[in-house]
Amino acid sequence: MSTDLKALYPATRLAAVTDAVRAAGLGALLLTPGPDLRYVTGYDAKQLERLTCLAVPATGEPFLLVPRLELGAALASPVSTLGVEVVTWGETEDAFAIAAARLGAPDVVALSDRMWALNVLKFRDAFPAATQVLASTVLSGLRIRKSAVEVAALREAGAAIDRVHAKVPAWLKPGATEREIGAKIAEAILGEGHVQVDFVIVASGPNGASPHHDVSDRALERGDVVVVDIGGTMESGYCSDCTRVYSIGEPPAEFAAYFTVLREAQEAACASVRPGVTAESVDAAARDIIAAAGYGEWFIHRTGHGIGLESHEDPYIVAGNATPLAPGMAFSVEPGIYPGPHGARIEDIVVCTEDGYERLNNAPRDLVIA
Amino acid sequence: MSTDLKALYPATRLAAVTDAVRAAGLGALLLTPGPDLRYVTGYDAKQLERLTCLAVPATGEPFLLVPRLELGAALASPVSTLGVEVVTWGETEDAFAIAAARLGAPDVVALSDRMWALNVLKFRDAFPAATQVLASTVLSGLRIRKSAVEVAALREAGAAIDRVHAKVPAWLKPGATEREIGAKIAEAILGEGHVQVDFVIVASGPNGASPHHDVSDRALERGDVVVVDIGGTMESGYCSDCTRVYSIGEPPAEFAAYFTVLREAQEAACASVRPGVTAESVDAAARDIIAAAGYGEWFIHRTGHGIGLESHEDPYIVAGNATPLAPGMAFSVEPGIYPGPHGARIEDIVVCTEDGYERLNNAPRDLVIA
Repeated sequence: MSTDLKALYPATRLAAVTDAVRAAGLGALLLTPGPDLRYVTGYDAKQLERLTCLAVPATGEPFLLVPRLELGAALASPVSTLGVEVVTWGETEDAFAIAAARLGAPDVVALSDRMWALNVLKFRDAFPAATQVLASTVLSGLRIRKSAVEVAALREAGAAIDRVHAKVPAWLKPGATEREIGAKIAEAILGEGHVQVDFVIVASGPNGASPHHDVSDRALERGDVVVVDIGGTMESGYCSDCTRVYSIGEPPAEFAAYFTVLREAQEAACASVRPGVTAESVDAAARDIIAAAGYGEWFIHRTGHGIGLESHEDPYIVAGNATPLAPGMAFSVEPGIYPGPHGARIEDIVVCTEDGYERLNNAPRDLVIA
Repeated sequence: MSTDLKALYPATRLAAVTDAVRAAGLGALLLTPGPDLRYVTGYDAKQLERLTCLAVPATGEPFLLVPRLELGAALASPVSTLGVEVVTWGETEDAFAIAAARLGAPDVVALSDRMWALNVLKFRDAFPAATQVLASTVLSGLRIRKSAVEVAALREAGAAIDRVHAKVPAWLKPGATEREIGAKIAEAILGEGHVQVDFVIVASGPNGASPHHDVSDRALERGDVVVVDIGGTMESGYCSDCTRVYSIGEPPAEFAAYFTVLREAQEAACASVRPGVTAESVDAAARDIIAAAGYGEWFIHRTGHGIGLESHEDPYIVAGNATPLAPGMAFSVEPGIYPGPHGARIEDIVVCTEDGYERLNNAPRDLVIA
């Protein structure tokens, strides 16, 4: 692989996280497997019923609690280079009691946002005097701005999903079902360098009017518009996400009218991206154009979401989010119009740069007639 | 597909769950996307940052809260046949406030075990007077005993993963890496009827001594023992999980000695399964044989885990679990011995029947010399 995992998950990050834990007045940060743990340690562990947890106390040394039978996997991960003590627990031990004995009675503990309720409630009982807050209160501020190496990983993901889109037109034949096409796309997502398929939406004809349709047994017909929204996770851990619109032969005239508006709105929203501009103003840049053209009621979702180790993360490009953009923030710009009996969405991943923006998807954005 | 989804997810289940909510003295059960929601409604929704939640109050009607843009997906699911009100919320609305306004101030709310902390803490704030408990307190008792249709779905999954194991020996050639073999296995898991690859462990030589190794770039060598533990999820939602051990040519003599013990232990544990026997006694049936042969210290994990809509669920086959087995309980029986520089594990999914057990995996359990 071309991505340098050591540079992506630098050993210095844990110190920065410890500083953030102290600055936020937390007693401890508790991270179970998922994107937060991977961000801090590089350890790509699965979330399972047995507790694996990195504890970062405000005072004292961080440690990683792992089931004894996960020890080999933990030590094979970048965790072994961080100088973090690895504490194992056996099948009949209480892992939460072990954590509590080491951490004492913190006032506030932060839990990874995707920690299962199963563990949230056990930590509640293990630290009965502690207030639980989300890890994002300290980690979002770090994760939201991507380093140059992280942007490179997202760029690599963007190029990979662009290569998948380049293959799609050949598969869009009348008679082929969305499910059949989806299976080919899933295979291509893996074939083009992702290690995981995150989602495959092939929304043809009337299904295009449901933004989160996935695939169905509907067979494509001549004249169909097909919305293809696909993404996966690379070995680096970073995600791709890109939507393009295809048609089987000439699309309906009323479709062509709003697709032109959509194309313009997506372009304007991308062009509005630069440091200091708020997330919600990027949403407004797309929404104003769509509303002015009379399609406002059919743009029923936010304009975008942040992307990195998660397909959806901060910053959300939505009304009410006054977060000012800053260099390194990466997010989708994906307005849509869904009047039925068809719909459309155009999506690129965009990174805010020092003086503007860079698009990480470069497949043609105009309607592709297959 | 051969599985009858309507029979797997009967519309009558919601009434049984409502009864269980009342019997447990809960104010409301709150299920976000995941196996609990799928079990109750048949709706296979993805867990995302936007709240989708089935609320089952003790008094009043259940309702499904969905983001407006997921409405199409929700209505295309079996939810539409349950007579449950579907309540949508828009991008700038507070979904938790909508839930709270409808549910009032329950004393106890149960949350799906895999609900993200993100939502657990928002529900905590939306219902400040409520005690949060896990949904498993009411659902585990229902989910743990599989209906005949559920057993049939697990049997279909078992046969599918058996077909994958049948292909493995041809891929185990000296020089091939674990990762290359793993990629072929992943493709075959999908090719044999699964819709998702859950895990692929190809642990060759010394890696076989780490029970949860996945794959590495290690190339296979002559004389290697290879532990292959693989599983996926079928379209039905039900999971497969099966481990077999292969060797490239003749294995080391000391390996053959403990593999014979392991084979006997796995057989004895399966044979011990019948109604009324406790989960921990199945663990003991395997462990006693392994310990008596002098390998006890190298059997470092429990004997098994329940399986159904999750790869790992109740009942866990572990010391301390005195749950008596009952017909319809399905779980893995997978003792292992890991002395290094190699290791072994044999795993079948077993269902407790009216008078004994049925194995759902039937690939040869003896060492397969590739």
